[in-house]
Amino acid sequence: MTHDANCIFCKIIAGQIPSRKAYEDEELLAFHDINPWAPVHVLIIPKAHVATLSDTGPEHAAMLGRMLALAPRLMAELGVTSGYRTVINTGPDGGQEVYHLHMHVMGGPRPWLKG
Amino acid sequence: MTHDANCIFCKIIAGQIPSRKAYEDEELLAFHDINPWAPVHVLIIPKAHVATLSDTGPEHAAMLGRMLALAPRLMAELGVTSGYRTVINTGPDGGQEVYHLHMHVMGGPRPWLKG
Repeated sequence: MTHDANCIFCKIIAGQIPSRKAYEDEELLAFHDINPWAPVHVLIIPKAHVATLSDTGPEHAAMLGRMLALAPRLMAELGVTSGYRTVINTGPDGGQEVYHLHMHVMGGPRPWLKG
Repeated sequence: MTHDANCIFCKIIAGQIPSRKAYEDEELLAFHDINPWAPVHVLIIPKAHVATLSDTGPEHAAMLGRMLALAPRLMAELGVTSGYRTVINTGPDGGQEVYHLHMHVMGGPRPWLKG
C-alpha cells in the first residue's frame, strides 16, 4: 500500500499521530476532526495515499463508493438523525488543506453550516 | 428503474424539464445548476430515484463510486484546473433541498466558496 512519509494522514493511519477513531477496516479509516465545524465532524480517508480526488482513476471507483456509503452508516452510529453534509475539497481553489484524499462528514443540529 | 412522478430531478431525467447536460450514461446524469454558486457548478445524479444518501445501501456502492469518479473528469472537461468541491447534502440539517440524491461539483477561480 502506498504511503507518504511526510503526510500527516499517513502518520495517523500508521498510529504515529493519535486520533479518535470512528471506523477502521483494511481499506478505510474514519476519525474525528480535531477542529470540528459541526457537532459531529468525521473525516473518512483511504489508507492508501492518494493526494486528491483528481488523482483517482477507474481502479479507485469501488473504494470511493465505499467512502460515500460509509458516511450515512457512521452518522447513524454517532447519533446524527436529522442530516449531515459530505464534502471533498480538491486543489487550491477547492480549499484542500491536506493532500491526502479525505471526505468531511459533518452533522448534528443546526446552525453549524459554514456554507 | 425507480422514479418519482413528483420529483423535479426525475422530470429532468425524463426530459420533461429542460437542463443543460454535462454528461449522461445509462446510470448517471450531470447537468449545470440553474443557480450556480461557483463559475462551474454541476449536479451529478443517479437516474434511479433515491431520495437521500441515507437511503443507499451496499447495492448502491458502485454507483456512488461512479458519481465521485465522474467529478474530476467533468471538471477537467469543463476547464476547471485549479480546484473544485464536491458536496452531498443529506436531510434537513444537511441543507438538502431536492429529495433526489445529488452531488454538487463546484469549481473555478476563487472567491466563490460559501463555506
